[in-house]
Amino acid sequence: MEEIQERLKKLRQAMHKAGVYAYYIPTADFHHSEYVNDYFKVREFFSGFTGSAGYLLVTEKEAFLWTDGRYFIQAEKELEGSGIRLCKMDTEGYDSIEDTLKKMPKDAVLGFDGRTVSASLAKSFKKALPSGKLKYKEDLTEKIFLRPKLPQSVIENLPEDIAGESAVDKIGRLREHLKENWADAIFISRLDDIAWLLNIRGRDIPCNPVVLAYLYVDMEKTWLFTGDGKTDIAYHGALVRPYQEALRFMKSSSVKGRVLLDPGSVSVIFEKAIKKHAKPVHGKNPTEAFKAVKNPVEIRHLTDIFLKDSLALTRFIRQLTTQDKSFTEMSAADALEAERKKIREYREPSFPAIAAYGPNGAIIHYEPSHEHETTVERKGLFMVDSGGQYLGGTTDVTRTIVMGELTPEEKQAFTDTALGMLDILNAVFLKGTSGMNLDFLARRRFWNKGMDYKHGTGHGVGYMLNVHEGPQAIRMRKAEEELKPGMLVSDEPGLYREGRFGVRTENILLVEEAQRTGDGVFYRFKNLTWVPIDHKGMDLEKMSREELAMYEAYQKETARHLRPHLSPEEFAWLQEYAGIAAGEGE
Amino acid sequence: MEEIQERLKKLRQAMHKAGVYAYYIPTADFHHSEYVNDYFKVREFFSGFTGSAGYLLVTEKEAFLWTDGRYFIQAEKELEGSGIRLCKMDTEGYDSIEDTLKKMPKDAVLGFDGRTVSASLAKSFKKALPSGKLKYKEDLTEKIFLRPKLPQSVIENLPEDIAGESAVDKIGRLREHLKENWADAIFISRLDDIAWLLNIRGRDIPCNPVVLAYLYVDMEKTWLFTGDGKTDIAYHGALVRPYQEALRFMKSSSVKGRVLLDPGSVSVIFEKAIKKHAKPVHGKNPTEAFKAVKNPVEIRHLTDIFLKDSLALTRFIRQLTTQDKSFTEMSAADALEAERKKIREYREPSFPAIAAYGPNGAIIHYEPSHEHETTVERKGLFMVDSGGQYLGGTTDVTRTIVMGELTPEEKQAFTDTALGMLDILNAVFLKGTSGMNLDFLARRRFWNKGMDYKHGTGHGVGYMLNVHEGPQAIRMRKAEEELKPGMLVSDEPGLYREGRFGVRTENILLVEEAQRTGDGVFYRFKNLTWVPIDHKGMDLEKMSREELAMYEAYQKETARHLRPHLSPEEFAWLQEYAGIAAGEGE
Repeated sequence: MEEIQERLKKLRQAMHKAGVYAYYIPTADFHHSEYVNDYFKVREFFSGFTGSAGYLLVTEKEAFLWTDGRYFIQAEKELEGSGIRLCKMDTEGYDSIEDTLKKMPKDAVLGFDGRTVSASLAKSFKKALPSGKLKYKEDLTEKIFLRPKLPQSVIENLPEDIAGESAVDKIGRLREHLKENWADAIFISRLDDIAWLLNIRGRDIPCNPVVLAYLYVDMEKTWLFTGDGKTDIAYHGALVRPYQEALRFMKSSSVKGRVLLDPGSVSVIFEKAIKKHAKPVHGKNPTEAFKAVKNPVEIRHLTDIFLKDSLALTRFIRQLTTQDKSFTEMSAADALEAERKKIREYREPSFPAIAAYGPNGAIIHYEPSHEHETTVERKGLFMVDSGGQYLGGTTDVTRTIVMGELTPEEKQAFTDTALGMLDILNAVFLKGTSGMNLDFLARRRFWNKGMDYKHGTGHGVGYMLNVHEGPQAIRMRKAEEELKPGMLVSDEPGLYREGRFGVRTENILLVEEAQRTGDGVFYRFKNLTWVPIDHKGMDLEKMSREELAMYEAYQKETARHLRPHLSPEEFAWLQEYAGIAAGEGE
Repeated sequence: MEEIQERLKKLRQAMHKAGVYAYYIPTADFHHSEYVNDYFKVREFFSGFTGSAGYLLVTEKEAFLWTDGRYFIQAEKELEGSGIRLCKMDTEGYDSIEDTLKKMPKDAVLGFDGRTVSASLAKSFKKALPSGKLKYKEDLTEKIFLRPKLPQSVIENLPEDIAGESAVDKIGRLREHLKENWADAIFISRLDDIAWLLNIRGRDIPCNPVVLAYLYVDMEKTWLFTGDGKTDIAYHGALVRPYQEALRFMKSSSVKGRVLLDPGSVSVIFEKAIKKHAKPVHGKNPTEAFKAVKNPVEIRHLTDIFLKDSLALTRFIRQLTTQDKSFTEMSAADALEAERKKIREYREPSFPAIAAYGPNGAIIHYEPSHEHETTVERKGLFMVDSGGQYLGGTTDVTRTIVMGELTPEEKQAFTDTALGMLDILNAVFLKGTSGMNLDFLARRRFWNKGMDYKHGTGHGVGYMLNVHEGPQAIRMRKAEEELKPGMLVSDEPGLYREGRFGVRTENILLVEEAQRTGDGVFYRFKNLTWVPIDHKGMDLEKMSREELAMYEAYQKETARHLRPHLSPEEFAWLQEYAGIAAGEGE
């Protein structure tokens, strides 16, 4: 902890010199990615807090760290003795950062590294601050936090029989969109959008196969700023320049006219650069909506990869529930990873696996570790949320496995979770429906009992890209994006009872057309995840006839999908595990 | 139809003279009211279309009328031979007005009466139009459409035992809100907001007990612009000025500082006036959210009035289904009105009653007339959607009455409608839930069959005010407003089959708290409408056990509420009509 205090002291000296009263350090990289490379871990360096979300504010005398409910316990421990005050987000009795900025002295200047703060966040800081004064051209941490080398992975070019659409065609669509919106060019800093557009993949962020880069596209040319700019891989006509040159380029007279940029993902310093010779036009990256709709080639690969991934998880469940061997959370996660590794197309996890036994399941973003080994016992619930990056798709799946005797409370939660998931899976909905319209379906059984799960029901999923992507989502609020054929969405209700247990069941669904009638076009979900739901967890007696039919249909359909790939012994086990009578699901 | 063509010809001459390429005529009055006084019926005059929603765009050579799904059939008929093209809103194959404006010639100027177009709509027109040129200071229809006299009804002052909160307290709350939002004053043009704030009611719009007025409130004074400004009724300290002086006043130096205005309900010409000496600040009228939450006094009166209104409708249904006498749509509507008139607190209808027999029921906002009398026969469905303005509340209720034999299609639609309504009524939901989250519940039985109803599921309801009010609603889209205890919402799914039948069932619900748990605060609906659902319409055999229980519970609860006010003969009839076994619902 003395180390942290020493670092903060040096930072305060730099702040003093620069005439900065408060300094803001987010978790974000320069691209506002959800997961970041070590190169960007400045917030961790100055606070000691290792969580994946949170931001630090250092003033002359104080320091504050904001983080969300997932990390309250961890942050309290990690901040101990640092002198940094933990500010719990969305919790009564704690100020937000805007509230804190509002209370600053009249002439207080707020500093930050302009590469790490989006144009829209900078605007809201300016609005909150009494002085309205921001200083962000300089990185005051530069001489204190010695960054590791900037990552520069070998770039992979996706062939068209994997990508389904050439980069040239994608760029053509992008330019069409620019024209329709009276823009002359676009600046993109979101890494998954760049990877999708150019059909390239990299390894610059663990679990996220992206390339650290900026992209500028005008009506004639495409500039890709990445690595040292020397790579000679074919980029479909893109001019390759060094990563570090992006800012200078965006200030140059090559950038002109009306330049579209997403203020939520483009850093303020780039917006300022663009203003030098051009007019920034705010709007979403059209690439986000483009890449959300999977093309037929992607869908074909996804269908295949999800079945293989389902088989891996199903075989892991068999191991776990039938072998005499004792597992820990970690060894179980390893055993599942070993099953995935048997698949030719497998590359790496799509996010750090959550393997949470018993009360650990109640910690929503729990990560098992070797330091605190937990044995998976022969009772209660074991939740495993994991996924893989494959050539041909990104997977994400959660099953909660019944390890033995359950309490009535556990069984009820398990049943309501599974039925909520299946209700979404079986929904038929009119064109124009958004995830806000469907969310209630997954929650209503809990709400009727005064219970709720504190996370969204579903998120978009990338194709050989980030496991979380937009714009669609299934949530109570802020999910107005229409669900369109070709979109993927996760379907993952759950229930968490602190100190007792957690349960979550997650499938990935594909939106497809159901029918067209005089009343409109109707959509439904095509299921991609075929993993049985543990029969012993279902409270069959409390289910209605319709619920029972829905559950049994899913189990039988799952058996039918898996059977061609299972040995007779495996299938016999599956029938029992899934609660299917002999002769069914064949 | 020649009349319409003649009027359009004169308008085009005026347009030509004013250098206007296209002229826009909305349904709106100067206050963006849903229903308007005859003084404002310019769109109807120039198009012949009598529906309550829609807008006309006249260019040199063409004319377009946009309206929504409720009016497609009616508009087609009414526009026949006028040369005006019907543009179906939200329908594939039809351009929106913005699309149409985008395709206009490069220098085309759009004209309209600046009193009838809100600041935000004017902005979106400007954006869509290639030239960006608007001309709105002049009313080009002035010499063609000779307006009737501006209405000026006697103003009624609501006593506090009816209003539940004094105008002084309401204005105090409003000023509090202004302070919190750094505003110095507010300009309000919404008539129901003004009526609510000052606890005044009028008769300037049929069915909507409002006073034609503008309001300006700063930190010290309140100005009410209405009539000739000479009325001497007590306005809780408001200075009364003539209606016609509002625009001049808003341009004066009395209007200064930061002035809050709702760009969706304040006309562009007023925003411009305010800019003369003050800075307009855009935001919703806080009064909208204030008045949506009914206070305990209002709720007490509402509960009583809704029961009385339910009794009137129930008695009307008994007349209709048991008397030998033959009814027409009009005579039935009159008989219902006669039942309402027996209630001491009754004043006038809250909207023109929809009494639609057989295929007429498929016309969503059908209005019966003496010109086209339709006899209510002893078969099929008869839909009655009506409501009243009472001292103590505004009601709105729809029942579809089974007149005899039904087709299987009619019975299925009737059943799905009733169950959708009851599903919403029985929902339990977390604080933060919006109408977008609940809408699916009412539609899912239809969507599963490829069917849909082309209107929202629910709207807010005023208290002795407009039958439709915001901000809350139950809809697929654009209904993100949180449902809060004290809010009223209608619950009215339906199904409409052109040329065959229509069915709709509507109750009014009050949001109230259900329970508080560790997972949050949960709400539910308290039912206000106690009218039985025709038992003969329900397809009991196709209903699940849970659906059956839900339906029967509502019927019995209804009988229990009505019984103290019914004669033994009436109650015996009710039991049969509602399908309640003797001895139940007592």
